[in-house]
Order: sequence, then C-alpha cells, then structure tokens
Amino acid sequence: MTLSMYEASVPVFSARLKALSGVLSAAEQNATERKIDPQVFLTARLAPDMYALVRQVQVATDHAKGAPSRLARREVPKYEDNEATFAELQARLTKTLDLLASFSAAEFDGSDERVVELKFGQREASMPGMQYLLHVAMPNFYFHVTTAYDILRHNGVPLTKGAYLGNRWRIARCEVSRPLPGNLV
Amino acid sequence: MTLSMYEASVPVFSARLKALSGVLSAAEQNATERKIDPQVFLTARLAPDMYALVRQVQVATDHAKGAPSRLARREVPKYEDNEATFAELQARLTKTLDLLASFSAAEFDGSDERVVELKFGQREASMPGMQYLLHVAMPNFYFHVTTAYDILRHNGVPLTKGAYLGNRWRIARCEVSRPLPGNLV
Repeated sequence: MTLSMYEASVPVFSARLKALSGVLSAAEQNATERKIDPQVFLTARLAPDMYALVRQVQVATDHAKGAPSRLARREVPKYEDNEATFAELQARLTKTLDLLASFSAAEFDGSDERVVELKFGQREASMPGMQYLLHVAMPNFYFHVTTAYDILRHNGVPLTKGAYLGNRWRIARCEVSRPLPGNLV
Repeated sequence: MTLSMYEASVPVFSARLKALSGVLSAAEQNATERKIDPQVFLTARLAPDMYALVRQVQVATDHAKGAPSRLARREVPKYEDNEATFAELQARLTKTLDLLASFSAAEFDGSDERVVELKFGQREASMPGMQYLLHVAMPNFYFHVTTAYDILRHNGVPLTKGAYLGNRWRIARCEVSRPLPGNLV
C-alpha cells in the first residue's frame, strides 16, 4: 500500500474511533462493577477549564467527520451534540464510523494541494489539504482521543495502552511474533 | 506540496516537539511563579500506573527519533534516558529536533511499502512503513505528547490548546483572517 491522503486520514480515524469505543465500553463496565454512577465518568475532567469526557468524545468525532468530508469536498454532517450517556456516545461513534466507511479513496485525489476553507464562528482560515490534515485535524483529533483515555485512567478505569491503540498492530497488516507490550503508558 | 512519507513524519514530529518545548517552558516558569519545586511537575502522573511527566517526554521523543530513523533506514540513536530536570528535557528535545532537521525527503522514498523491523526486548514485529508510521508511531507519539500536556493542566499550569498546537496554524503555510480559537480544550 502506498501513502495517500485517504490512507493518512480515513483508516486512521476509523482505527482510533473503534479503539475509543472499546475504551468507553470498558469505562461503562467499570462503573457498573464499582457501583459508580456513569455520569461521574461522563462529566469528569482533568482541570476545571478543560472539557469533560462527553465533550472530548464529541470533539474527537467532530474532527473525524470534518476532516475527511472537507478533504473530499463533501458537506460536513451536522451533529446535535446532545449526547449524555455512554450509549449515546457509542451511537455517535457508530454514526461517524459509518460515514468514514462511505468514503472512497478516489474522493481524496488531489486533496493534499487543494485548499480547504475553515470557519469557526466568524473566524476563517484556508490552507492546503495536507497542511490541514497533518497540522490541524490530526493533532486536534489525537488530543481529544488521548484526553478521553487520560480522564478515565485518572478515575481508576483499568485501561492499558493496548485499549487506546485498539490492539490494531495485532490485527493490522503486519506480522507479530509475540504480543507487543500493550500496558506501557 | 504533495503528501509524502517525509511530510507525514518529519515536519509533524518537529512541529509537535517545538510545541512541547513551549509547554515545558511554561510549566517551568509556572513552577517558579507559584514557588513549586519543579520536581513536583516532573514526577507528576495522572494515575499511579501511568508514566510521570519526564517519562512521557522521553517516550514521545523516542517515537520522534525512532520512526524517521527506521523509515529512512538509519540506525536509531540511543539516548541515556537519564533526564531529571526541565533543562535536561529541553536538551533532549533539541537533540531530537536537530536529528529531525538532518533528514532529507529523498531518504523516505519508498518507505511506505518498505518493511520495518521492530524489536521490543525479545519481542519482534515487522510491517510496511506506512502501517508503522500511521498506526503505531503516530498514535503512540501523540499519546505521550498529549498526556504530558494533560499532566501539567491537571496540576494547574495555565496552558491553552494553542500551546499544545504550538500555534502552528498561524505560522504554517496558510492564511488566517483572524486568530483561531486557541483556548478550546
């Protein structure tokens, strides 16, 4: 497989969101086991002026739906941003994964050099697609996926690095002679 | 600019490490202002079985030196992993940035399909370079860069998302009509 804007975006977002789904499932199960109200996890945050878990997941999916849509010159789907339970967050992840599965590699041809227009309220920016993907969308996406994991680890959910990675390097197109270290964080 | 294995690795690692350097500088300054022993930040962690700040920075730089070296078929430089102060972490970042600056784009030609051999102690894995970069090195790298930021935010260091991003989208090859939101986390 050769590198392309499609390969650098769609399968990456998909793999990370599938892993995030597993992380959230583990958190929900852990809340049940420890008799903790799931809202404690869902509203947890690492600092008073950082987003809570629900919002971290919402923003992660915003980048995962927004970046490929913009690069492929499709309209970015609007979400209501009203999730309040683990089930609703899982539904949002599923919706985003379904969107990602709908993209074809051909839609991304030329998107590295094509200019992407961004709007944040009254603020606007434009930059080549490659710049947008590698230096805006990905750093932001990874920030929120990682912080969601960090919030849960900080609250005692027994996750390993393997959960964050979704063990993808075991299921990916690679050979592993023995399981790789998944519990190093 | 068209997408390449070089563009998808070297400038990304460089930009994020430069931003991390700024984050660590802000943390050191904040420790001084609040009369907090810098070791409090350097040894802080989000969970008892997660790495402390120093180790997060070390592992982030391990991926930033390891991935490009492996893709370019260079030997991965060995570091001593003995940093214990902010100044020593900054020196490690500088050393890694200097290494990154030494790569030429041509060294990465064909690295997407070329197989990379990985060894972790007695464990081994091999996979195509693209798979390694996009699904092993980058997710791990971003994990540790983000968690370093999260540790500091959790300890009250007044950072914004702009610090994590290094405000790169203001200095990058793009046009911004007004400053973009940097404080959304």
